[in-house]
Amino acid sequence: MTRFALTLEFDGAPFMGLQRQAHGPSVQQTVEEAVQAVTGEQVVMHAAGRTDAGVHATGMRAHVDVVKEIAPFRLMEAINALMRPAPVAVLACEVVPDDWHARFSCVGRAYEYRIVNRRAPLTLERGKAWLVPQPLDAEAMDRAAQALVGLHDFTTFRSVHCQARSPIKTVDRLAVRREGERVLIEAAARSFLHHQVRSMVGCLALVGMGRWEEARLADALAARDRNRLGLNAPPDGLTFVSATYSSGPEHTELA
Amino acid sequence: MTRFALTLEFDGAPFMGLQRQAHGPSVQQTVEEAVQAVTGEQVVMHAAGRTDAGVHATGMRAHVDVVKEIAPFRLMEAINALMRPAPVAVLACEVVPDDWHARFSCVGRAYEYRIVNRRAPLTLERGKAWLVPQPLDAEAMDRAAQALVGLHDFTTFRSVHCQARSPIKTVDRLAVRREGERVLIEAAARSFLHHQVRSMVGCLALVGMGRWEEARLADALAARDRNRLGLNAPPDGLTFVSATYSSGPEHTELA
Repeated sequence: MTRFALTLEFDGAPFMGLQRQAHGPSVQQTVEEAVQAVTGEQVVMHAAGRTDAGVHATGMRAHVDVVKEIAPFRLMEAINALMRPAPVAVLACEVVPDDWHARFSCVGRAYEYRIVNRRAPLTLERGKAWLVPQPLDAEAMDRAAQALVGLHDFTTFRSVHCQARSPIKTVDRLAVRREGERVLIEAAARSFLHHQVRSMVGCLALVGMGRWEEARLADALAARDRNRLGLNAPPDGLTFVSATYSSGPEHTELA
Repeated sequence: MTRFALTLEFDGAPFMGLQRQAHGPSVQQTVEEAVQAVTGEQVVMHAAGRTDAGVHATGMRAHVDVVKEIAPFRLMEAINALMRPAPVAVLACEVVPDDWHARFSCVGRAYEYRIVNRRAPLTLERGKAWLVPQPLDAEAMDRAAQALVGLHDFTTFRSVHCQARSPIKTVDRLAVRREGERVLIEAAARSFLHHQVRSMVGCLALVGMGRWEEARLADALAARDRNRLGLNAPPDGLTFVSATYSSGPEHTELA
């Protein structure tokens, strides 16, 4: 048995999410079926994160266990050929030790959220950004975001469907910057609660619009009450960018 | 009669091109129909460039003449609402003098061509880049490109369907750079021949792959023979970025 670590890029639009779903296509099913077609083996893919429908990835990490003898490059090429035309690609494929686990060995996850801040509808970035027509003060958003950095009870920013045992998480980085008409939000943590990034972004947008005072973000956090959430940002703007591991081969920088 | 200058962004994928076509949807038809719905007037849109099917724009300039009294902002908002769900957006709308012409007053056109240089299929950039799996030497491409800068007879790089009176053009800038797995080519000139940018990019890619020596690009140019063209790059990677004018209001920087 060989464990292969995969680096995945995908457009989340046509999927019900990363995880296998009974009611529609998923990234997991797409990859697993391709691996099965190559190896003749039933495999289960484990991924660093379980992204929602519509959420994208440029550097998702995952692993599969394969009995058949096959070189990583050949496996990658075969999977990529078989997954067409689904918008999923394996960017890298490496052999890892059997105790390396894409989800449980992962010690850091990074997301980027893209807002396009203008009145005109999206064209080239449709489905890949959140269109916010009201002017956003990105500097105010960045200042307010710092209240969420560190170890906190994120109950306010947690989906009712979240399965995590504890709502306590440490946000390592939450940074907002403007690039022309785009407002980009980077979020990094060991792990996030379900909907946490989108919930944080939604409230930051309210701050940016001037509908929330900066201090209200800290108040909402302290309340530990989902009813205090202002807004859950849509999935389209969210991209899983990278996962980090304390051991095993590191992801080849491709971007 | 008021002349309105429009700044357009569009995803070229669903269109037969910018110009009105008998056999399918065009950007021109989409904009003209929206203006007609707002004003009740038959209008003709004139644009700085006539992009092919599949070619995108982030800063195309165009103009329409309208008799009805309407503020530029209101016209823009109404057109944008009416064009949905077509992936065309008016980013800016300004009143210009009657002698300002989007095509004939334009003194500079700039394009960007995006290559993704990797083996894995495209996902998020599908339809928006040219996937080149062979490793490209971007520095060799940039060196070779300089042979095309300046005043030349571009017959080799001209479509058989080109309607320009003369094949002589001045390329002001042709620059190639690598950004991670992307190879980006910027091209600027007062005007280009039909397929000129894609033809130049196709040959530059052959240089990048090592299939053409750098000097062969200058030889192909000097030959003034379409049969010496190595490769016409696909439209997907091409974006019309900006048009410049010597008079009249300048385009508001939106990106």
